[in-house]
Amino acid sequence: MNVVVIGGGAAGLKAASRIRRKDGDASITVVEAGKYVSLGRCGLPYYVGGLVHEVDNLRETTYGAVRDEAYFKKLKNIDVLTETVATEIDRSRKTVKIVRNGSEDELNYDYLVIATGARPAKPPIEGIEAEGVVTLTSAEEAEKIIEMWEEGAEKAVVIGAGFIGLESAEALKNLDMEVTVIEMMDRVAPAMLDREMAVLVENHLREKGVNVVTSTRVEKIVSQDDKVRAVIANGKEYPADVVVVATGIKPNSELAEKAGLKIGETGAIWVDEYMRTSDESIYAGGDCVETTCLVTGKKIIAPFGDVANKQGRVIGENITGGRAVFPGVIRTAIFKVFDFTAASAGVNEQMAKEAGLDYFTVIAPSPDRAHYYPQANYIRLKLIVEKGSWRVIGAQGVGMGEVAKRIDVLSTAIQAGMTIDQLANLDLAYAPPYSPALDPVITIANVAMNKRDGLFEGINVFELKEKLEKEDIVILDVRSEEEFKTRRIESEKVIHIPILELRERLDEIPRDKEIVVVCAIGLRSFEASRILKHAGFEKVKILEGGMAFWF
Amino acid sequence: MNVVVIGGGAAGLKAASRIRRKDGDASITVVEAGKYVSLGRCGLPYYVGGLVHEVDNLRETTYGAVRDEAYFKKLKNIDVLTETVATEIDRSRKTVKIVRNGSEDELNYDYLVIATGARPAKPPIEGIEAEGVVTLTSAEEAEKIIEMWEEGAEKAVVIGAGFIGLESAEALKNLDMEVTVIEMMDRVAPAMLDREMAVLVENHLREKGVNVVTSTRVEKIVSQDDKVRAVIANGKEYPADVVVVATGIKPNSELAEKAGLKIGETGAIWVDEYMRTSDESIYAGGDCVETTCLVTGKKIIAPFGDVANKQGRVIGENITGGRAVFPGVIRTAIFKVFDFTAASAGVNEQMAKEAGLDYFTVIAPSPDRAHYYPQANYIRLKLIVEKGSWRVIGAQGVGMGEVAKRIDVLSTAIQAGMTIDQLANLDLAYAPPYSPALDPVITIANVAMNKRDGLFEGINVFELKEKLEKEDIVILDVRSEEEFKTRRIESEKVIHIPILELRERLDEIPRDKEIVVVCAIGLRSFEASRILKHAGFEKVKILEGGMAFWF
Repeated sequence: MNVVVIGGGAAGLKAASRIRRKDGDASITVVEAGKYVSLGRCGLPYYVGGLVHEVDNLRETTYGAVRDEAYFKKLKNIDVLTETVATEIDRSRKTVKIVRNGSEDELNYDYLVIATGARPAKPPIEGIEAEGVVTLTSAEEAEKIIEMWEEGAEKAVVIGAGFIGLESAEALKNLDMEVTVIEMMDRVAPAMLDREMAVLVENHLREKGVNVVTSTRVEKIVSQDDKVRAVIANGKEYPADVVVVATGIKPNSELAEKAGLKIGETGAIWVDEYMRTSDESIYAGGDCVETTCLVTGKKIIAPFGDVANKQGRVIGENITGGRAVFPGVIRTAIFKVFDFTAASAGVNEQMAKEAGLDYFTVIAPSPDRAHYYPQANYIRLKLIVEKGSWRVIGAQGVGMGEVAKRIDVLSTAIQAGMTIDQLANLDLAYAPPYSPALDPVITIANVAMNKRDGLFEGINVFELKEKLEKEDIVILDVRSEEEFKTRRIESEKVIHIPILELRERLDEIPRDKEIVVVCAIGLRSFEASRILKHAGFEKVKILEGGMAFWF
Repeated sequence: MNVVVIGGGAAGLKAASRIRRKDGDASITVVEAGKYVSLGRCGLPYYVGGLVHEVDNLRETTYGAVRDEAYFKKLKNIDVLTETVATEIDRSRKTVKIVRNGSEDELNYDYLVIATGARPAKPPIEGIEAEGVVTLTSAEEAEKIIEMWEEGAEKAVVIGAGFIGLESAEALKNLDMEVTVIEMMDRVAPAMLDREMAVLVENHLREKGVNVVTSTRVEKIVSQDDKVRAVIANGKEYPADVVVVATGIKPNSELAEKAGLKIGETGAIWVDEYMRTSDESIYAGGDCVETTCLVTGKKIIAPFGDVANKQGRVIGENITGGRAVFPGVIRTAIFKVFDFTAASAGVNEQMAKEAGLDYFTVIAPSPDRAHYYPQANYIRLKLIVEKGSWRVIGAQGVGMGEVAKRIDVLSTAIQAGMTIDQLANLDLAYAPPYSPALDPVITIANVAMNKRDGLFEGINVFELKEKLEKEDIVILDVRSEEEFKTRRIESEKVIHIPILELRERLDEIPRDKEIVVVCAIGLRSFEASRILKHAGFEKVKILEGGMAFWF
C-alpha cells in the first residue's frame, strides 16, 4: 500500500505514524513545503517571550529526540520530504505532482492524506507587506521578531486580539517592548468571550502595561525605507518597530479544490465523519478541513493542534481498515495572558444568537480552592444555558486561578449534554488545596437553577451602568465597611448597609424605587435580595458577579 | 412552618440556609452538640501543619465573617443552639428532646433534618484511650496536637493511610516531627488507589522522610503515666509522643435508629433520592446517611464535605416544596501529600472485582502540559474500562502535576457514561501552559483503545518483577544511552537498544524468548512492540507505564 501525505504538521504526521503502527509494510511518504516538520507552532509565543529556549524544543519528543527527516525514517520508516511542494493531484491516475529542488516528480498513492494546514489571513491593509510586519506562525517569523528586538526594536503593535494576538502581546511585553493591541471588535478574544468576560482580560492587560484598543479598525501601516514605522487606526498613529498580524487564518484548500474535491461552505475542505473527502481514496485533516460544531450543528473551521492530532489518528486508523469517527468539536479554547487564564467551550452569546438558540446566561465568581487555603484565587465563570432543555451549551472562564480545570469539566459536560441540574450534582474531587467544598462548577450550576426558578433577577455590569445613568434606581451595597471603603460604585444612588445589619435597617431603603443589590461576588446580594423579597420589596435585582465584574 | 435541624455541619446548615432563602417565614432551629458550627474540618490538617493560621479561618465565609450563632441569627434569622444535644425524636408528636446547659427541653417540628454526621471509627486496640491519641476530626483535637508539639512532642505515628491519615502525616512532618504511617492493607489510600499507583505515593512519602509501613496491623498502644509512648505493630515498637488514629468513620445513626427510622445495610441512615428518610417529615443528609454508588449501584457511605453540601441543598429545596434529587456519587476523592496529588473516581480494581464487573485496565504517564513548557510534570493516570460496553468505570491519578483537572474530567465522563472512544475525541482546552496537544485524558483513552484492539499486550510492574525472577524472558530497554545509564532495571536479562537503532539491530534480539519492552513512559515501548510484531516476533509485551512505574 502506497500512502502519500501532503503536509508535515500535526494531522499529517499523526496519520502517517498511526498507519505505520498498524501496518508494517505500507510505503509512506510525507511531503512538506517548509523546512521543518512536526513543529509545535502553538509554542512560538513562548519561544519569542524567552520561556522556551530553542526552536528545536518545539519539535522534540517528550524524550528529547528532534523530529526531523532522519527521526521519521529510522523510527517509523516514513519518508519525509521537506522543502517539497505538492502542485497537483491527479485523482484518476492516483498521483501527486511534486516540486523538489527545482525539479518535478510524481508520487503514486493508494491513499492520499491532505493536511496542508492554513495560512495567516492577512487583511487588505495598505502597507501590510512592509519589512517588520510578521505573523508569528512559523519558526522563521519568530526568529525575525527576536532579531528585530536584538537590533533595538522598542515598540510593537499587534493587530487582532484573538488568543494568538494576546499571547504575542505578552511575549513582546516580556521582551520589554511597548505593546499596543488593536482589535476591530468591541472586545478582546471575541471568538471566545462575551463582553463582560473580555473586559476582565482587557483590564489585566492594561495592569500589565499593554495598551488595548478595541472597536478600532487599522487603516494603514506606515513604512520608512520599506521598514515599518507606525500603524494608523481611527486616525491615530501608533509608532511601531514590529507589527504582528493575528487576524485569523485561511485554510489551504486550493490544491484540493483544483483536484475537484468538495469544498465546504466555510471555504475549507469538506470531509465526512471518517475524515474522508468526496474522493474515497483521499482523506484530509487539520486546519485545511471544516468540522462540525456539536452545539449548533454548523460547519466551522477549528484550527487547533489538538483537533489536528485527533483527526490524524482517525485518518490513520481508517486508512488501515478501521472505522474510527471524528464527530466534531465544541470550540473549546484556552489561552494564558500574563497571570490570567481565559477559556471557553461551546457557544458564546453571539454564536448562540446567530444559531437562533433560546438561552439565558449566568455568571459567578468563586474561589478556585478553599478560600482559607493559601493561593486561593477568584475565578469568574459564565454559563450559557438553553431554555427548555436546561442544557449547558456554553461556558467561559477568566481569572488568575484554576480556570482550565473548570472549563475542561464544563466542556465534557456540554459534550455529554448535561443539564444544569445534573451539573449541580457532579461528583467532583474536593479537598481544600483543589476546590472549595462546592466547586465553582457546582456553584454556577446552583446559581443557574436559582435564576431559572425565579429566585433572583440579575443584571450585568453594562445594564447597571446604563441604569445608573438613566434611571432613578437605588444601588444597595451590602458589603462590609472595609470593602466599601476600598472600592465602590461612585454614585449618590448608592446606599451602603452591611449584610449583617440589613434585617434591622430595612426602613432605610425606599420601597418605591428599583433596587439593585451589589456585593463582592453576588453571593451576599442574592441573600440580600431574598431578605428584601420576603420583606415585601418588589423591584429587586442583583448585579450578577458583583464588584468582581465592575470596572 | 417549624423546621428543626440536628447537626450544625455542612449538610444541616446548608439545608437550613436553603430553606430560609426560599421561605422568609419558616421558624428554623439548628441544634449542635459541639462548640462550633459550620467548621470546615477538611482544613484541620492545614491548620495543624501551619498553612492555615487560625481555626476560625475554617468557619469564615469568603468575605471573612465568622459563621457563629450571631451570624446565622442576624443574616439568616436561623436559631443556632450550640453545645446542645438532641436525645430523642418523638415522631408521633413531631418533637425533638434536647439537653442544653444540663436542662431538658423540647422542640416541635413540621420537618426535621437529621445531619448528625459521623465519628471516628476507633479500632479496638489496647491502649487507644491514652492521652496523646487523637483523631484530627475536631478543632479541639487539632489544638491538642499543636499543644503537644509546643510541649516538645517529636515522634508521631499515624494509624491508617487513608487520605486523612496521609494529610495528617504531612502536617506532622511540617512540624518537623518524625512520622511513621502504619496501614493494615497492602498499600496506602486503599479505598482509592490500586497497588501500582499507591506505590508511587508511598515512594514520595519516603522521599519526604515519612516512614511508611503497609500490610501491618497495630497490636497495642503503649503508655507511660497514662501518656502515649509507643505503638506496637507486627512485634515492632514505634516510639510515639503523638498518635493520630485515621481508620475511617462510623455514621451517627443511633438517634435515627432509636426513632425507628430505616437504617441501611451500611449502618447509615437510609434515604431516598429526595434525601427523605422512611418518615416523610424527616430528611437526612451528610455523613450519617448512605448513598448510591452510581457505578456499582451499591449503597455506600460517602463522608465528604462536597456531598454533604449538595445533599443539604436538596433537602432545603424539597422541604420548601421542590422536587430536587441527589442521585448518588461515584466516590470521587482527592488528596495532596507533599508535592504529590492523588485522586480517584469510580471504582478501583478491588471494587470492580467485588462488584463482579468485567473490566480491563490501562495506565499511562503523560506530561501535564506541553513538555517544552516550563514546569511540565509527568502525571500517571489509570483507567478501569468495562469490557463490552467499553465505558470508563474508574480512574486514578497520581503525580506532581495537574492531576486534579484530569480526574475531574474523567469523573464527569464516568458520570456521563462515556466510552473510551468518546473520551478520545473529547474537545478539551489545549494551549501549551495547560496541556500537551493531546491531553493525558485523550492519550490514555487512545492507549485503552490500542489495548482493547490488541495492538499491544501490557504487563504491570508487579507481573514484571515476578517474571524477572521466575521466567527466562528478555527485557528490551529502548531508551537512550543517557536514560539507561541514569536508572535501569538491574538484571542480566536486560538488552539495551535505543529505539532509533531498533530497526537495524533486530538480529540482536532472541526470537525464541518472551520479550518485555521497557521505556520511560510506555510510548516508545509501544512503538518498539509494533516494530517487533511487524518483524515477526511473536511473544512481545510491554511494561505499561514504563520506568515511571518501576520501583
